[in-house]
Amino acid sequence: MKYIDLNCDLGESFGAYTIGNDGKVLPLISSANIACGYHAADPVVMDRTVRMAHEAGCRIGAHIGLPDLMGFGRRNMAISAEEAKIYTMYQIGALKAFLDAYGLQMQHVKPHGALYNMAAGDYALAAAICDGILAVDPGLIFMGLANSEMLKAAKDKGLRTASEVFADRAYMPDGTLVPRSCEGAVIRDEDEACRRVLKMVTEGAVEAIDGTVIPLQADTVCVHGDNEKALLFVQKIRTRLSEEGCMIRSLL
Amino acid sequence: MKYIDLNCDLGESFGAYTIGNDGKVLPLISSANIACGYHAADPVVMDRTVRMAHEAGCRIGAHIGLPDLMGFGRRNMAISAEEAKIYTMYQIGALKAFLDAYGLQMQHVKPHGALYNMAAGDYALAAAICDGILAVDPGLIFMGLANSEMLKAAKDKGLRTASEVFADRAYMPDGTLVPRSCEGAVIRDEDEACRRVLKMVTEGAVEAIDGTVIPLQADTVCVHGDNEKALLFVQKIRTRLSEEGCMIRSLL
Amino acid sequence: MKYIDLNCDLGESFGAYTIGNDGKVLPLISSANIACGYHAADPVVMDRTVRMAHEAGCRIGAHIGLPDLMGFGRRNMAISAEEAKIYTMYQIGALKAFLDAYGLQMQHVKPHGALYNMAAGDYALAAAICDGILAVDPGLIFMGLANSEMLKAAKDKGLRTASEVFADRAYMPDGTLVPRSCEGAVIRDEDEACRRVLKMVTEGAVEAIDGTVIPLQADTVCVHGDNEKALLFVQKIRTRLSEEGCMIRSLL
Amino acid sequence: MKYIDLNCDLGESFGAYTIGNDGKVLPLISSANIACGYHAADPVVMDRTVRMAHEAGCRIGAHIGLPDLMGFGRRNMAISAEEAKIYTMYQIGALKAFLDAYGLQMQHVKPHGALYNMAAGDYALAAAICDGILAVDPGLIFMGLANSEMLKAAKDKGLRTASEVFADRAYMPDGTLVPRSCEGAVIRDEDEACRRVLKMVTEGAVEAIDGTVIPLQADTVCVHGDNEKALLFVQKIRTRLSEEGCMIRSLL
Repeated sequence: MKYIDLNCDLGESFGAYTIGNDGKVLPLISSANIACGYHAADPVVMDRTVRMAHEAGCRIGAHIGLPDLMGFGRRNMAISAEEAKIYTMYQIGALKAFLDAYGLQMQHVKPHGALYNMAAGDYALAAAICDGILAVDPGLIFMGLANSEMLKAAKDKGLRTASEVFADRAYMPDGTLVPRSCEGAVIRDEDEACRRVLKMVTEGAVEAIDGTVIPLQADTVCVHGDNEKALLFVQKIRTRLSEEGCMIRSLL
Repeated sequence: MKYIDLNCDLGESFGAYTIGNDGKVLPLISSANIACGYHAADPVVMDRTVRMAHEAGCRIGAHIGLPDLMGFGRRNMAISAEEAKIYTMYQIGALKAFLDAYGLQMQHVKPHGALYNMAAGDYALAAAICDGILAVDPGLIFMGLANSEMLKAAKDKGLRTASEVFADRAYMPDGTLVPRSCEGAVIRDEDEACRRVLKMVTEGAVEAIDGTVIPLQADTVCVHGDNEKALLFVQKIRTRLSEEGCMIRSLL
Repeated sequence: MKYIDLNCDLGESFGAYTIGNDGKVLPLISSANIACGYHAADPVVMDRTVRMAHEAGCRIGAHIGLPDLMGFGRRNMAISAEEAKIYTMYQIGALKAFLDAYGLQMQHVKPHGALYNMAAGDYALAAAICDGILAVDPGLIFMGLANSEMLKAAKDKGLRTASEVFADRAYMPDGTLVPRSCEGAVIRDEDEACRRVLKMVTEGAVEAIDGTVIPLQADTVCVHGDNEKALLFVQKIRTRLSEEGCMIRSLL
Repeated sequence: MKYIDLNCDLGESFGAYTIGNDGKVLPLISSANIACGYHAADPVVMDRTVRMAHEAGCRIGAHIGLPDLMGFGRRNMAISAEEAKIYTMYQIGALKAFLDAYGLQMQHVKPHGALYNMAAGDYALAAAICDGILAVDPGLIFMGLANSEMLKAAKDKGLRTASEVFADRAYMPDGTLVPRSCEGAVIRDEDEACRRVLKMVTEGAVEAIDGTVIPLQADTVCVHGDNEKALLFVQKIRTRLSEEGCMIRSLL
């Protein structure tokens, strides 16, 4: 039996502002990445999302971001390694309060947006985030881009890792993502995307943009729930995985 | 032997902005109330202050405030009971990350500024804060104004309490503080302030503004360290307490 | 010929967060109240909304709020009179930059949410807001609740005023709004709401909750555009006003 | 007669937080760069600083920054050209409100911190800031680093410029600043710094780090007032300039 985790970014609403369909996507995934008040979310949203994720049977992770609510954490910021470490600690701690309240264990930490993209290519930044995780709870799993500096740093630091793959993104021959600015970076055909996910999950391999087949560890697949189309795609992936004998479950 | 805790608000710097003389007051107190990023502080300041407080041998508490950095948490805000509870949880959790990192236990929670003043007179708000504390860690001590709704709510909720007194404030016959807007609200004579603290600590009593002597439980005395004069006053209180055989130590 | 202004709160999106259907409601109104970055909006949203409002032929006002993005400016905050004045200036100035860029004149200023509600009953606060308006541009119109302290203060200060009425709210015999917490505060029947608006506009009168008919000056009617139902209601009011020979136009 | 402007960053306090000695440095300078609430300052500080600068006879400029209060605007952020333009407009407009209130004309705009450094080397970013200035008030002067992309863009856009030089920084043979990370980047000898300023002002030239003498237009010299030493240095520069027959006055 093959196992795979499906993760989704959740709890991104803020005050009077709503983003996402958390209630609709939660039953379809196994791991919820919950924003911690830096790039998105406020404490009331965090509390509600933790409760909803738990009720849906999902494991919970801290979706840590840059302190840039106005930019939704999507703009690169030149934070120092010390700041990266300490912002990681702050956000994990803040989310942990709500898990403690419901007697839950946090499962993982996943950087968001620009922090994710920067750390994917910056070993020192990734290592600083790992230091923050280790300082608060060394049992947490670092969820990061397959083949990235994030996973290398996490492994070097002795953290458990979850190698994340994307259904709708093309890969370079070296296992990194084709930049969005390049042609062919995004796989728009849903059936093709499904086929790729299945191959990644069952064979640990993906066809790179140059046609070569490369190894790619898939511990978790990132899915989205912000619109009807995205939700239907998650349903489709679930069905196909099930047909191939893959079981969806959270990280162990 | 009589024991008394001296507490001070610390870790109120933010980014490039510095407030206080944390390094100078820490050796003089036993409990540090550390801001959590709402009314003051950022994560880097929190991390540094936790480390400094620990190195100085102080126990640490979360100084929780309203989400009003521009107003330093000193302006009343009509937050709901749910918000009070959940903001309390968020702030405790965030600070706890830094205590976890150094293997420390959090000792107490003290509301700051307008939240303190509002909760002192508002049982429902005080109870909501208690609910937030209980949800995260029922072993935490609620530090609040002697004879206030804060302590009543905390006791009703089964929380341990620390009854806080002020050296430089006059009291009403019912044990509450004389509002700052009233004449005689602030005791400006330092010797008189010292005498009052000693009487509160050793006899559990204070002379109210009308001359009657009233009971007042003093578990902890609030001191300040933001200027040279305040630091000298803390020194003086320490000396006087010591002469009277009172030992300064954190809450048990 | 009778004239009436229809105003709506707009430009309340923030970063990745969207609120409202600005593009749909703009063609139906004559005055747009645009948020200024305190309770809602960011500069990019402000710029876009000013442009959209102008293209739709609407006049523009500053929708000034409390510095509480997390609470969407809906929570009372005890700001001082000086702060009220100066926050008003800051927000008007910030919005004015975008009007200047398109060669437009600002028409009015309307307080938002908790600031509106507080100022409606607090002459000193309302006067402080007026002082802020006067300091920046004495030609601006103060848009505020009919019969409230806002309009009294604005008239005393020599500001032009726009007396705002609500289609869906019941009135007290003294001309103030029935608090939302009271039964009958909200008029849910749309035809009834339309009839009331027409009476206010054409006769300057409304039936209070006790059945007495009271005078009520209606310079502008507050409408909403945040959902389909609200948009249909604005259409209905426009049709009814037109049938009665009332012309919708901005404040003069 | 030679003329030179002395400019200083001011109004950087925020809420309960104080930075700088604005009252002490204002009598020594001719142009005040006032923060606008993004990287520093709140509206109350802005109002007070505008008043103080005016009373001291200084001309006023908008010191525009990145939306990063926690980082004091000193961390590079990947904002888009549109955001740079629009944030510039917002901040100029907000500050302008306080100038309008006192019947004052804004003189200039100077980017702060990371925005200054980024725009010094990024023509597109500098041009976007210029677009923001032009949109609000084409009469404003762009104050920026001598020989930088900021001044090039400003000139191309038809803006008036003020070429800013630094007393305590070494220059490359191409007229740009020696990066702070390089040895010799900072001139620590005060007399040497004074001599360099005089040469820049009177001869329009400076000795680069390799010993060659290069042309450098000095319209304004950046000075600091955040400590006693800095204030004394400003005094010294003023005296030396006066001895050489240079008159300190704001930009024309």
